[in-house]
Amino acid sequence: MVSVKEKKRFSTGRARNPEAFVEVTRPEQLVKILHRLIRAGADRRISAILARLHPADIAHILTFLPIPESRQLIRILFRLRKAAATISELPSGMVHEILEGIEPDIMAEFVRRLPPDDAADILQELPPDELRAVLQILHIDEVNELKALLAYSDDTAGAIMNPDFFALDSQLTVDEAIQKIRDAGDLLESVFYIYVVDETNRLLGTVSMREILLAPGTRILSDALRTNPVMVRVDMSEDKVAEIIAKYDLLAVPVVDEREQLIGVITVDDVIDVIQDAATEGLYRMAALDEEDRVFSSPARSVALRLPWLSLNFLTALLAALTVGLFEDLITEVVALAAMMPIVAGMGGNSGTQTLTVMIRGLALGEIRSLNVRKAVAKEFAVGLTNGICIGLMGGIFAWLWKGEWWLGVLLGIAIVVNLCIAALGGATIPLILRRFKLDPALGSSIFLTTLTDVFGFFCFLGLAAWLLPLIGVI
Amino acid sequence: MVSVKEKKRFSTGRARNPEAFVEVTRPEQLVKILHRLIRAGADRRISAILARLHPADIAHILTFLPIPESRQLIRILFRLRKAAATISELPSGMVHEILEGIEPDIMAEFVRRLPPDDAADILQELPPDELRAVLQILHIDEVNELKALLAYSDDTAGAIMNPDFFALDSQLTVDEAIQKIRDAGDLLESVFYIYVVDETNRLLGTVSMREILLAPGTRILSDALRTNPVMVRVDMSEDKVAEIIAKYDLLAVPVVDEREQLIGVITVDDVIDVIQDAATEGLYRMAALDEEDRVFSSPARSVALRLPWLSLNFLTALLAALTVGLFEDLITEVVALAAMMPIVAGMGGNSGTQTLTVMIRGLALGEIRSLNVRKAVAKEFAVGLTNGICIGLMGGIFAWLWKGEWWLGVLLGIAIVVNLCIAALGGATIPLILRRFKLDPALGSSIFLTTLTDVFGFFCFLGLAAWLLPLIGVI
Repeated sequence: MVSVKEKKRFSTGRARNPEAFVEVTRPEQLVKILHRLIRAGADRRISAILARLHPADIAHILTFLPIPESRQLIRILFRLRKAAATISELPSGMVHEILEGIEPDIMAEFVRRLPPDDAADILQELPPDELRAVLQILHIDEVNELKALLAYSDDTAGAIMNPDFFALDSQLTVDEAIQKIRDAGDLLESVFYIYVVDETNRLLGTVSMREILLAPGTRILSDALRTNPVMVRVDMSEDKVAEIIAKYDLLAVPVVDEREQLIGVITVDDVIDVIQDAATEGLYRMAALDEEDRVFSSPARSVALRLPWLSLNFLTALLAALTVGLFEDLITEVVALAAMMPIVAGMGGNSGTQTLTVMIRGLALGEIRSLNVRKAVAKEFAVGLTNGICIGLMGGIFAWLWKGEWWLGVLLGIAIVVNLCIAALGGATIPLILRRFKLDPALGSSIFLTTLTDVFGFFCFLGLAAWLLPLIGVI
Repeated sequence: MVSVKEKKRFSTGRARNPEAFVEVTRPEQLVKILHRLIRAGADRRISAILARLHPADIAHILTFLPIPESRQLIRILFRLRKAAATISELPSGMVHEILEGIEPDIMAEFVRRLPPDDAADILQELPPDELRAVLQILHIDEVNELKALLAYSDDTAGAIMNPDFFALDSQLTVDEAIQKIRDAGDLLESVFYIYVVDETNRLLGTVSMREILLAPGTRILSDALRTNPVMVRVDMSEDKVAEIIAKYDLLAVPVVDEREQLIGVITVDDVIDVIQDAATEGLYRMAALDEEDRVFSSPARSVALRLPWLSLNFLTALLAALTVGLFEDLITEVVALAAMMPIVAGMGGNSGTQTLTVMIRGLALGEIRSLNVRKAVAKEFAVGLTNGICIGLMGGIFAWLWKGEWWLGVLLGIAIVVNLCIAALGGATIPLILRRFKLDPALGSSIFLTTLTDVFGFFCFLGLAAWLLPLIGVI
């Protein structure tokens, strides 16, 4: 009846407990030293240095080295049994490049030493034939576990969970549980909650190490556990998992399938990565950037990722040009309009971007819900109107002083007020519209907004002039 | 010799362990129900609902209610002993508003029930006279502890640490340590590492609950501990603390003063807030927004925070207008230039924003260091040049087709290429320049960039026309 789920590895690639290592505060110096040692072929001195560093620091240093030198360090790390832990800390774009040309049997060894969730991440980046070669070397159980992980779609709980966890049968006594924990020994390094399951592996609750320490030895686990733990379904999105862990201040959350059977655990350190990625995504999507477009992705890749959006942006810029084109006769008569129109468009763009940013962040943090959407839009409109009146006054005075014509000041002032109102409405509603179409609220929003503020700004400034100037006899 | 630091509270306001509560997936419905119950004065039914909710969920619901209703819920929560935990989960802008008019003795009771770091956060938002009234009611020890926390400058380790931690003397045996842990009882809820100190309170190392569970009872703690734990200095910036916790996958990190004496602990849940705030900051600073400018801050506050930046933006927009003003005679002769110039400026602005975003994120994540800055700038220039050539070709063809003049196409094409190169250089260097001046690399960067791309875009397009058109006999 005692069904203890004990696996070979419990996140041994991680250093979740405080450990002895040298903290690297100035990676630049270390990079220079390693660079020199690699060229001198001083493998033993390199080994001595790497042995004292934390995998996260080694990974950081690798990002500064040329690829061939990185590969040489990886071979040394492999002998130090630190390669797997280091690779799991590398930025995702670099893993593939560094592991290219590493023999399948060495790759298989990496994969064995990694927590399965990290291993699956790395395998996902391999070309299909290399992946097949690695899977052939691994044991059938390992392959099945990895294949199961690879099957979960990206960005779900299944893709970031660790399927190795420590679960105990609810019918064990506390003393039996302690024996199981002792048997697991060092492998339990990073376990903080112990999950208690029934005979069908359904999750019943949790006990902490401290509770086990304090409970009488003969008590049955099912009487000592906390029931109703927060759990997540395997198909929940990773952003939602991060939200739950952050909201309820959890260290780890159990992952269950549709029958509430325990199948994995997600820890807070995985979630920190998700939160940082989500922050990158928010910034990136506003500027119409792909997440893979990083500082050191190749120029060709960056061009391929940015050019489609810039081409869309080009089409929208044509709209603005065609709008101005409608008023060419007017501009020939009052050329000062051409000099002032960028003020209207530019102020609208930047003011609208402020509204856009507040809304996108409010949506990302869950502060905006269907209940209070109207309130949020109304507030932004009020802010846009007020700012518009202030900036419009400044603009009006400037235009009057510069060109000595009062009607230029009136035109510019009114156009700024109107365009800042439109910018506020656009900034507030573009993310909502994108979300309505099931798109990311930030996706390319900056481009859509500046199109709106350019086209509308030019149209309202020049259109107003075309209507007003004949009335007052200027043209 | 036995110096055990045992305090009254150990983060009891938090639910770091999995606990039984109802997870709220549709807050809208709950808000409507509570709204109705508050108007009906059905306090007992409200009590019954709130008792089953997690403080984080209650806080979320409060953000949707009008302030008077929120205050009423706070009074009910106070009777349920859940008010303090709920308030510590509220977005910072709201705390002050909700607590306005709450009596000092109730406030003092809140403060007692909160972990000191959260209490200090809330006290910081009170007006000076209310703060004094609350401090008068508290016990002198409590006041001293809070005053010490309030003295640490914002955004440092000292400001986010919890000064209540569990530390044991290194000369205790394991059995004595277990007795101390049993004595601490439920207060130890959220303690995962036990810190071991010498007789002067200097941090020697850590032991985990599991290690204590496994060690022989007669062993002295100083022989069982892990030495060289990662620790942070009390004056370290909170962003740096977050970086260390995230990088080394820690659950908590001890905070020490200049003599390495243990004075507090920072846990991973505090750091998740710091990371989310940092993400908001990055986005916000680019758009020249203050972090306090949230979806539901008052319109007056938002105007006060945004208008100074928009005024600066107005001054920079004048530069663009004056630039165009230099070429008014030219525009009168070739008015099509006025219609095309927004394409040059707009494409530069959006393409430069992409570069800017990549650089700001790279700096925030520590991917860019002095070693590789040149490589990053060179890459962005290459991307800008390539994208410029592609978009320039499209622009040239468009201008030629639209107006039927080949030279308009050449002018527009060249100006787009040059401006996208300038945009790339500007986007890559503006954050670096801001950082050189010890400013946030994102601060107002979007405004500086669009000024550059507007002014330079107009100047290069119109200047090129002024030089080339007479040469080829068009004007």
